[in-house]
Amino acid sequence: SCSAMSCRLLTLCQYETNKLVRINSVRLGSLKWTLNVVILMFICIMMLWNKQYQELDPVVSSVTAKLKGVALTQVPGLGDVVWDVVDYSGPAQEKNSFFVVTNVIITKNQKQGKCGLRTSCFCIPGVQTGACVKFDVRRKTCEVSAWCPVETRSNPPRPALLAAAAENFTVLIKNNIRFPAFNYVRRNILPQMNDAYLRGCHRGDDALCPIFRLGDIVHQAREDFAVLAVEGGVIGIQINWDCNLDRLMERCLPKYSFRRLDEKESNRTLYPGLNFRFARYHSENGVEMRTLYKAFGIRFDVMVFGKAGKFSFIQLVVYIGSTLSYYALVSDSLR
Amino acid sequence: SCSAMSCRLLTLCQYETNKLVRINSVRLGSLKWTLNVVILMFICIMMLWNKQYQELDPVVSSVTAKLKGVALTQVPGLGDVVWDVVDYSGPAQEKNSFFVVTNVIITKNQKQGKCGLRTSCFCIPGVQTGACVKFDVRRKTCEVSAWCPVETRSNPPRPALLAAAAENFTVLIKNNIRFPAFNYVRRNILPQMNDAYLRGCHRGDDALCPIFRLGDIVHQAREDFAVLAVEGGVIGIQINWDCNLDRLMERCLPKYSFRRLDEKESNRTLYPGLNFRFARYHSENGVEMRTLYKAFGIRFDVMVFGKAGKFSFIQLVVYIGSTLSYYALVSDSLR
Amino acid sequence: SCSAMSCRLLTLCQYETNKLVRINSVRLGSLKWTLNVVILMFICIMMLWNKQYQELDPVVSSVTAKLKGVALTQVPGLGDVVWDVVDYSGPAQEKNSFFVVTNVIITKNQKQGKCGLRTSCFCIPGVQTGACVKFDVRRKTCEVSAWCPVETRSNPPRPALLAAAAENFTVLIKNNIRFPAFNYVRRNILPQMNDAYLRGCHRGDDALCPIFRLGDIVHQAREDFAVLAVEGGVIGIQINWDCNLDRLMERCLPKYSFRRLDEKESNRTLYPGLNFRFARYHSENGVEMRTLYKAFGIRFDVMVFGKAGKFSFIQLVVYIGSTLSYYALVSDSLR
Repeated sequence: SCSAMSCRLLTLCQYETNKLVRINSVRLGSLKWTLNVVILMFICIMMLWNKQYQELDPVVSSVTAKLKGVALTQVPGLGDVVWDVVDYSGPAQEKNSFFVVTNVIITKNQKQGKCGLRTSCFCIPGVQTGACVKFDVRRKTCEVSAWCPVETRSNPPRPALLAAAAENFTVLIKNNIRFPAFNYVRRNILPQMNDAYLRGCHRGDDALCPIFRLGDIVHQAREDFAVLAVEGGVIGIQINWDCNLDRLMERCLPKYSFRRLDEKESNRTLYPGLNFRFARYHSENGVEMRTLYKAFGIRFDVMVFGKAGKFSFIQLVVYIGSTLSYYALVSDSLR
Repeated sequence: SCSAMSCRLLTLCQYETNKLVRINSVRLGSLKWTLNVVILMFICIMMLWNKQYQELDPVVSSVTAKLKGVALTQVPGLGDVVWDVVDYSGPAQEKNSFFVVTNVIITKNQKQGKCGLRTSCFCIPGVQTGACVKFDVRRKTCEVSAWCPVETRSNPPRPALLAAAAENFTVLIKNNIRFPAFNYVRRNILPQMNDAYLRGCHRGDDALCPIFRLGDIVHQAREDFAVLAVEGGVIGIQINWDCNLDRLMERCLPKYSFRRLDEKESNRTLYPGLNFRFARYHSENGVEMRTLYKAFGIRFDVMVFGKAGKFSFIQLVVYIGSTLSYYALVSDSLR
Repeated sequence: SCSAMSCRLLTLCQYETNKLVRINSVRLGSLKWTLNVVILMFICIMMLWNKQYQELDPVVSSVTAKLKGVALTQVPGLGDVVWDVVDYSGPAQEKNSFFVVTNVIITKNQKQGKCGLRTSCFCIPGVQTGACVKFDVRRKTCEVSAWCPVETRSNPPRPALLAAAAENFTVLIKNNIRFPAFNYVRRNILPQMNDAYLRGCHRGDDALCPIFRLGDIVHQAREDFAVLAVEGGVIGIQINWDCNLDRLMERCLPKYSFRRLDEKESNRTLYPGLNFRFARYHSENGVEMRTLYKAFGIRFDVMVFGKAGKFSFIQLVVYIGSTLSYYALVSDSLR
């Protein structure tokens, strides 16, 4: 006796609900309440512990490193040599990573030509001409087209030439970070860190001091500087920004840690340590010559990582929504 | 009177449902419907706004920068000097970051030896020999083993030597990105950008033009080029790829922005600005000599970040599942 | 007839549940069970497939690359020239990215001065003096202050000077990664890879071999080495760490892939390929001179990305919570 239209309206106004049974049972009632409280506590603790109500954003970073220190060392065949930053940091500009020469093999005044190799006729460095020439009274060797004389020494000097000095070099690391999603910018050099503070601070007392002694870095990476300096290696300077940007608990400070990145046991790997060659070129009477440096040293890689979390309404809604079902589950299972 | 087996079967065929009560109440009915519609709208808007149905993948990037420009400048004691890219971009290859020398202190023809320092006997640069030698008629100074003569000037020239020219240098930035999870590749130089476009485009009119005048970059980072050029600094070129890879709304274009990364107020920080030393080595009559350059300049760090979102069925299922509970909540609370 | 206090207590002890109707309907019962089983299977499969029970952490990486190889080549005007790593890898230290010179234009013995340009009076390189000077018998040209003589050749030699040799160079890539959230460290050189293995392994047979022939890399990026070598380019060496750190299914091995990063079709882009200039400076009778190298070559960018997943209780709780609602939905819709 109702038309289609009024019927639909009627449905809108009708309200369906489940028929409830109220049971007076202390056991069931208290069980239900206990379970609900336990779930609620668990969910709240999980939420706060894991900051499930936060949106996360990874860090975007820029690093500048500034090395300080001078070394005076006796290089075999060259006598006293002074090494300042320009000399020992290699031909690379200081950025995300900086290099400190700790040991060196120098081959002076190479020029292009043909020469013999000390080893034997199975040698590779240089392009072989095919000729097998007399190397000394007893041995013959293959002739190569190469920069002559070829580098002859293959093992780095022990102890490392610059180890003692390099251990006391210091580095100032400037790190500027940003969390683009929250438009939040920060530096590892905090506003209150003035000149006087920076000149005086020490890592030992103050975990936020951005000036590091190379010896301390290597020590904290659980390595022995003198040993590491011989063949070289890679040390990671890890800067972890684990930031909470919520107003009441704002906290955004860097945490520094150090570890060795290359294979430690040098007998177990090919090309152990870290070395690279560079050359300084000059002309003598129109002939190009170069002095070849095989530089062993420590590369410090500044690795910045981390994330920021900030309250996000949608994250909270989704998290609560996911956990609400557990209450329904309790009710259902106690039927 | 039923065996265990048939009992179990019976359970499978039984269907339990809640006993419903249908109440004809305009107030309750419309309240329920209103609440449900509000929740539904809220959930849908949140989903579309925050793209909760998308899976996210962070960007993997590669950058090439190509600088253009030549400067002619009067260097004190050297006269007219031409600086081209090779000279002013420092001894580093162009990559994620490029450097432009804007100011320079040149110390010519240093050689290793012992020499005095202008300051006093408290000096550090160079390794001290312990001797205290006459520096000039009135003063004594400590003697150091160092590259002599030592660099004497400590303040950069004002105005900066190359500032006027460097402001007009241009840089072409090529950025190739990838979202590995979606196997999606893109360049900041779009397919339709041909030679003619690239030669003519200007940042002012066209936010996608990949050629930048250094002066414009610094201006958009709200810095004064002439001031910045004196002591140097670090400017970030931020490229943000915020991509939507869903078919109907595909959109994946870079957004450029600029900001200064180092501490601006030079009196509040140690080692303000940005400078580094490099040297050019040569031999004269067998003695190694070097010309030391203390180069002040602007380092431009290209920082690429961003993420791509793409429809993911599982994300949608999880999101809807999380929000379904809110309807149940409404029904429960209106009991 | 109950006081407020006892009333509240009563509520705690009361247990409300829905009144159930048990209907013996094979159709409805089996439909409900089928639906529930389908949902359960779907949810479980989705969970296992997408590892929804895992917490994810992005990779933090450090790379060292070591190039090997020597080239002997005929440079026009210079005769036989030997190129070893120091010469052809450019003035940059080996790190995240390494460069191999494959082609070169050399301009010897430039010194600062004024000189003409071959082109015409519309030229830019160098700072124009305004004078228009005789270039040869027929042509006039603008005079510039520049390093003279200016580089005259603009097209790279074909075929590329070092292409044949560079194709056989090899590179050892050492990659050390870390997942900070799980404090998990790994290398691409696995513990069982000893010296003998590394000297003998080939990419063809063994996808984990960390030594690559440059020719193979370029081939796998679907490029022709001889063509690429002429103008240069950028090749990405992608290392993907997609790790599962759950105990029973632990798996964390690198996956290498290669692709070209710059624009392939050189006629469609400005500054095609990759080249950069560097110079070697020397003094002759007190006049600074330089030899300018315009080096065309291939830059190999090592791009490390990936993530690790590990079981997380909270992720599992949230996922199950999100999906529980679907069962309630089934029950509700079958009313």
